[in-house]
Amino acid sequence: MEELKKYIRSVPDFPQAGVNFYDITTLLQNPVGFQKALKPMEEFIKKRGAQKIVAIESRGFIFGAALADRLNLALIPARKPGKLPYETISEEYALEYGTDKLEMHADAINKGEKVVIVDDLIATGGTIQAVGKMVERLGGEVVGVSVVIALTFLPYQEKLQKYEVNYLISYDKE
Amino acid sequence: MEELKKYIRSVPDFPQAGVNFYDITTLLQNPVGFQKALKPMEEFIKKRGAQKIVAIESRGFIFGAALADRLNLALIPARKPGKLPYETISEEYALEYGTDKLEMHADAINKGEKVVIVDDLIATGGTIQAVGKMVERLGGEVVGVSVVIALTFLPYQEKLQKYEVNYLISYDKE
Repeated sequence: MEELKKYIRSVPDFPQAGVNFYDITTLLQNPVGFQKALKPMEEFIKKRGAQKIVAIESRGFIFGAALADRLNLALIPARKPGKLPYETISEEYALEYGTDKLEMHADAINKGEKVVIVDDLIATGGTIQAVGKMVERLGGEVVGVSVVIALTFLPYQEKLQKYEVNYLISYDKE
Repeated sequence: MEELKKYIRSVPDFPQAGVNFYDITTLLQNPVGFQKALKPMEEFIKKRGAQKIVAIESRGFIFGAALADRLNLALIPARKPGKLPYETISEEYALEYGTDKLEMHADAINKGEKVVIVDDLIATGGTIQAVGKMVERLGGEVVGVSVVIALTFLPYQEKLQKYEVNYLISYDKE
């Protein structure tokens, strides 16, 4: 899938100096590119036997929603604090400085349900790990993680070692 | 489309006392409901001859992404400030107290392109109006606005009177 890289725009020094940002908006504005990304994600999720897709706010919503529609699966949003109106559970995750938090509705997952977590990108794996913990607290089983991009120079493997992680393209240095 | 209301959860006093929040997560977690919402949005966008979908962060991403996939259209995100990495333009809009801002990439729309704006809900119309202004500043033409829910007790019509607005269900009192 390395050919997908031609749809990704690399923006230097965003959001801060020295960081290279991999911009998926150029992928999204090309329907051929978007669908080339969706197809293998769709196949992975089907193969894993998932019953629900948990998509992480907010770029994860883009891939998760199209995949839920393609696969006739429930779409569950994992959101930033204060956005979900009903009873929620939450998990903190570490940032470079301090922590942040994600929430899910407490009634979003039923015991024993098989779930795939979808996002655009894995960096440190902290947000995906937090979402995995919430799914498991609700009694669900994380049968896979599906993302477009993995930053393989960052140490996400340790955090996500118990999960089957599928990515389409990787960048192995900053 | 009033039957879609059975998939929407009404949550009282969110985000503040006296406000009724129409929760679409119950729609999203039911694939039948999600697709019942997507189908008429898809037909509207096709009928309007749109070439691009501009989806508003972040619940608009969910509907916009599935529709872009169904219709083979470019998906352009309108995002909260500081999220888009490349050259952006922005528009402010009024909140109950103060203002907020949305951004789009300056190269996201080409002159003469026909655009439909997608979001989950129209309340005052302020965010959609701001996005419409950005599309027009970039030379695009807003051929329609497609949302799931319209809060028809709020005065959005005036702000959006020059647009063809399509909604699936409406609530006419708080």
